[in-house]
Amino acid sequence: MFQPLRFQENKLHIIDQTRLPFEEKWLHIKNAREMYQAIKKLQIRGAPALGIAGIFGLWLGVKDEINCSANTFLKKVQETGDFLKTARPTAVNLFWAIDRGISVLKRGKSMNSRELAHLLLQEATHLWREDIETCRRIGEHGQTLIEEESNILTHCNAGALATGAYGTALSVIYFAQQKGKRVHVYVDETRPLLQGARLTTWELQRNNIPCTLICDNMAAYTVKQKNIGCIITGADRIALNGDTANKIGTYNLALIARHHDIPFYIAAPLSTFDSSTPNGKGIVIEERPAEEVRNFHNTPSAPPDIPVFNPAFDVTPAELITAYITEKGIHSPHTIKGLLA
Amino acid sequence: MFQPLRFQENKLHIIDQTRLPFEEKWLHIKNAREMYQAIKKLQIRGAPALGIAGIFGLWLGVKDEINCSANTFLKKVQETGDFLKTARPTAVNLFWAIDRGISVLKRGKSMNSRELAHLLLQEATHLWREDIETCRRIGEHGQTLIEEESNILTHCNAGALATGAYGTALSVIYFAQQKGKRVHVYVDETRPLLQGARLTTWELQRNNIPCTLICDNMAAYTVKQKNIGCIITGADRIALNGDTANKIGTYNLALIARHHDIPFYIAAPLSTFDSSTPNGKGIVIEERPAEEVRNFHNTPSAPPDIPVFNPAFDVTPAELITAYITEKGIHSPHTIKGLLA
Repeated sequence: MFQPLRFQENKLHIIDQTRLPFEEKWLHIKNAREMYQAIKKLQIRGAPALGIAGIFGLWLGVKDEINCSANTFLKKVQETGDFLKTARPTAVNLFWAIDRGISVLKRGKSMNSRELAHLLLQEATHLWREDIETCRRIGEHGQTLIEEESNILTHCNAGALATGAYGTALSVIYFAQQKGKRVHVYVDETRPLLQGARLTTWELQRNNIPCTLICDNMAAYTVKQKNIGCIITGADRIALNGDTANKIGTYNLALIARHHDIPFYIAAPLSTFDSSTPNGKGIVIEERPAEEVRNFHNTPSAPPDIPVFNPAFDVTPAELITAYITEKGIHSPHTIKGLLA
Repeated sequence: MFQPLRFQENKLHIIDQTRLPFEEKWLHIKNAREMYQAIKKLQIRGAPALGIAGIFGLWLGVKDEINCSANTFLKKVQETGDFLKTARPTAVNLFWAIDRGISVLKRGKSMNSRELAHLLLQEATHLWREDIETCRRIGEHGQTLIEEESNILTHCNAGALATGAYGTALSVIYFAQQKGKRVHVYVDETRPLLQGARLTTWELQRNNIPCTLICDNMAAYTVKQKNIGCIITGADRIALNGDTANKIGTYNLALIARHHDIPFYIAAPLSTFDSSTPNGKGIVIEERPAEEVRNFHNTPSAPPDIPVFNPAFDVTPAELITAYITEKGIHSPHTIKGLLA
């Protein structure tokens, strides 16, 4: 199984996602400034992966400050955290992981700076392992829903590249294959940024999963013609009633699944459930720059002054979702509340 | 109203669609070889427009052969027709229009070559006018379905650029505006070849119709958020029971319209109805090269060896279609058979 992150010789080695699928270039991140650049340039992306990058970036930024006082060390940790957060100010997971790194150091009241640095590295490694374990469990639970021989449709990249390993939606597929099931994945290219075409295809090929690329508008016809057994996507945020925000186009797929009477699954860790949001109406959808739709990779495809509507996400109502696959198991929209309580 | 074709000084002036929307370059077609090139390079496209190009190309190819015998002239007409058909061997309308030009000459039994050339030009002009009149009537009938203030979603390019003037789906929009209705059009970019992003936006802007470009996977969310009143597309071929083949993604939109309980209209001339095909199952769907999906305007967007499914069209079942707008009026799926009989 391909690993998108490696920790060796005090460096975090990450695959440069901006070069995929054309070049497999590894970045060898050795300090906070390099991590900042990698996050800012989207060389690393995906909520869980950004959390791991954030806390490792924090450690990389202070690991050599071990000859100063604990107070000076802690001040440096805070500064590095503030600096790293500015790389992607909207990435909730990045903030969360950095804050987790900072707060674990409160446990080390009598420690010197060398011991504090060690504690921080332990926490970073722990957070990473937690994420891998969560993704592994999502895959183990989710694969029970997959038939012995199955064509599956997915959207965007909810794979290893977005997490510590395995991914969420793709983890289900990896574990189905591991159990000997014969899966074939149809991959929505996922305009405007083409994460499906660029990343999911590459990752599936890399893990020897047979797959076929389609344009997003081919999904309905593909479900009808290619005997698709189910549609699985990840999630960005899930409201208390089960309404799910995910990459734009997910709602579209849920409607297609419903009309063709096939299951529509959301695979996501429990941390994606937002207990402060009662339903989808409370989820604010980010609108992104028009240039993303008027271009692809600097190739213009539309009049330069044409108005554009470019929502980054949409909200799929819970009633269109067959089940949620989390690290705790398979849940129907009706059982979510109990699960979170 | 913008005219995509002009006939002046014995030349057919066509706008080079491969340069749109970035450059408005006119081609001044003066002989059959130039017309062949324009068709082959897709500088002119759209079924009705190709018919007009075909019959004018035929005339351009023989207009100077007026000092030979009528028999020699007719032989030259046949050769020119055969030659022009090879520019796009799958374009049914191109073949139909060329054959119509050839067969009209049978009426000119006692004519000399100069008179035959004149007859051919008359028929070309007649065919063009017929197409304009058909599109005008589609627009006039269709606009009655549009509310005084309406947001409309469309797909691909079913506009003036694809016809002699006005278009089909866009004709409805142009005539609604002409009646003083306030329309705003949301345009699907229409991967893989981006006819929506490149051509429909350009044409609507040119005709002062307010419009907004979206990616295809944003359609469901746009219908929900932007108070879309109806979805209108053109058609490539309509079976006897009303099942409709059109640009890939149309079926997707019909499902979205149904779920949101808004009308889904097909605007097409009666010539699109194929009385030899009882239902959609009889329509063979062309699959096009993988490169179209693996690239975005010549910019690679996926692994070069990734398998691709690239159907050019899909079939929307009649039960998802609210009405068909033709030059004869508005028809429900139930009244089509009577109309064609």
